[in-house]
Amino acid sequence: MTNQASPELLHHLHAALGPSADAHTKLLESVIPGLIDSIGAIATALRKAHHVSRAGGANAFGDDQLNVDVLAEQAVRDAVSSCPAIVAASSEEDPVERSANPSVQEEIRTRGEDGEHYTVAFDPLDGSSIIAPNWTVGTILGVWQGRTALRQDPATRQVAAVLGVYGPRTTAIVALRVPGSEPACLELGLNEHGARDCAVVRSQVRLLDPESSSARYFAPANLRAASENPRYMDLVSRFIRERYTLRYSGGLVPDVVHALVKGHGVYVSPVTAGSKAKLRRLYELYPIALVMECAGGKAVSPADGSRILDRALEDLNETAGLICGTAEDVEIAKAALVG
Amino acid sequence: MTNQASPELLHHLHAALGPSADAHTKLLESVIPGLIDSIGAIATALRKAHHVSRAGGANAFGDDQLNVDVLAEQAVRDAVSSCPAIVAASSEEDPVERSANPSVQEEIRTRGEDGEHYTVAFDPLDGSSIIAPNWTVGTILGVWQGRTALRQDPATRQVAAVLGVYGPRTTAIVALRVPGSEPACLELGLNEHGARDCAVVRSQVRLLDPESSSARYFAPANLRAASENPRYMDLVSRFIRERYTLRYSGGLVPDVVHALVKGHGVYVSPVTAGSKAKLRRLYELYPIALVMECAGGKAVSPADGSRILDRALEDLNETAGLICGTAEDVEIAKAALVG
Repeated sequence: MTNQASPELLHHLHAALGPSADAHTKLLESVIPGLIDSIGAIATALRKAHHVSRAGGANAFGDDQLNVDVLAEQAVRDAVSSCPAIVAASSEEDPVERSANPSVQEEIRTRGEDGEHYTVAFDPLDGSSIIAPNWTVGTILGVWQGRTALRQDPATRQVAAVLGVYGPRTTAIVALRVPGSEPACLELGLNEHGARDCAVVRSQVRLLDPESSSARYFAPANLRAASENPRYMDLVSRFIRERYTLRYSGGLVPDVVHALVKGHGVYVSPVTAGSKAKLRRLYELYPIALVMECAGGKAVSPADGSRILDRALEDLNETAGLICGTAEDVEIAKAALVG
Repeated sequence: MTNQASPELLHHLHAALGPSADAHTKLLESVIPGLIDSIGAIATALRKAHHVSRAGGANAFGDDQLNVDVLAEQAVRDAVSSCPAIVAASSEEDPVERSANPSVQEEIRTRGEDGEHYTVAFDPLDGSSIIAPNWTVGTILGVWQGRTALRQDPATRQVAAVLGVYGPRTTAIVALRVPGSEPACLELGLNEHGARDCAVVRSQVRLLDPESSSARYFAPANLRAASENPRYMDLVSRFIRERYTLRYSGGLVPDVVHALVKGHGVYVSPVTAGSKAKLRRLYELYPIALVMECAGGKAVSPADGSRILDRALEDLNETAGLICGTAEDVEIAKAALVG
């Protein structure tokens, strides 16, 4: 079954991959459109979920909070199960790689690995702490070539990432990087019917040179860690002194998308003795890193400065810190934190 | 003409004012419902405005940016003109108090000031810098008893404030304070038809005692000013050291609503020699201050620590800084900045 996608969207996805598009028709015509449909479905569910806002502390959400988490998970699972090219999936809510379409898995076993097969890893609803106050939240989706994300080279096997952004509008960032074509990053605007009537708002999302940006932005995650980490405190003081503009929602998707849309930004989530790494490598870091690299930016570890996409996954639950955004500012943050 | 409002909404608005409701039936049954309808209309307009996101710098928005500003202004003007109890209105986009319903003004002239007459002051779309990245933005509406907001006592003459919040959902905060009744603050969840089918999500929005809050939040606006103002830098360092959680979207409405929904928060927008006051007293500060006070919080000036609502307006374009939120933390910030 092929998902219906607007001619405009298909045109831009094919154009993004150029000569490599032919080897990825299922990715472009079924997997990506199906995931965009799930983003549309999640947006619709969120819009009605008014009782998530019965909250005092982080864990005091009402029943609707559970409902939207479950609905978001189910929306992506529906997209996965209706797309035969997706053979396995796992999520931050259910971190086990499960066979998505058993008949296709069986076919692969008998007829070999020919053809297009993908594994999807996703965080259905990122930013739960800011759902109650009605701030923008997101969905993070990573698409891997083959039957698993485990022990694969993230830099070459994760071929696509999609971020769903639920704010006043519903938007999506789509990053693509397959062998033989240039990396691509697009911004879509969703309307009522997912991939069928979404608009391509920008066919090229790019971080700009800091010199050509009219403003510079920073998003210091886990800022409390600065109280015990003088390096982080110094870095934050430097950004303030150099008159960077603060924008920090506490949602990874909106914070990253802010940088992409503005053309500048650096997001820093350090790991210190007192505050452990909270970001999931598979469900958050890899897709965000692919998006950043496809937009001309960088994503590195604050622990050792290594590229996020250089380290393969040994366990679905691995966590780490993150520095990402405009390349030059990632280097500044890395030098400050790693030394 | 009376706007249609859901029985649930009318019930809660009447209950909020208690015995004072009878003297304010137009406020409760026409003015507030009309303004909620305008919030619903703005939400619908924003949802389709995908091309606002063609942005590099702050002034590089596409045509849709202008469109949503114009649409938001027009939505509130429509509500104003369809509500005879509103006799004057001005907005941040058009800061001139204009007669809203000339025939009623005429009636007032001939028959005197008996009856209910209100003036509305509004910022139709606050947070333009974060519209492009699809972050939550808002509308700010203040309702004044009588025919003008100029040279009135804000603490007693501004009787209602409504904040529209455009995020994954559309929500609204309604604050009411009329002589003879306790201040009230409600949170509404909007659906497709404005006041007609909105839900009362919380009938009492209250900031909690810091001791009873599970987390403490701070929103340091205009943080670049800390580079030239050691008092502000010390205050920010203190919040970090005391492990407050940073949440700063850069939109006044979402930043304030975050505190209201979480039950804790302090928002600080200082004024320094190098960075002038940017917040408009009439269109931003007064309504936000009323909301904060009705929720049990405080709103004071960072220049001298005076209560925002203690100073009458001499000019529609006046600007100032702001410290608002949980009373105890407002005092901390005031002591730090004012000395």
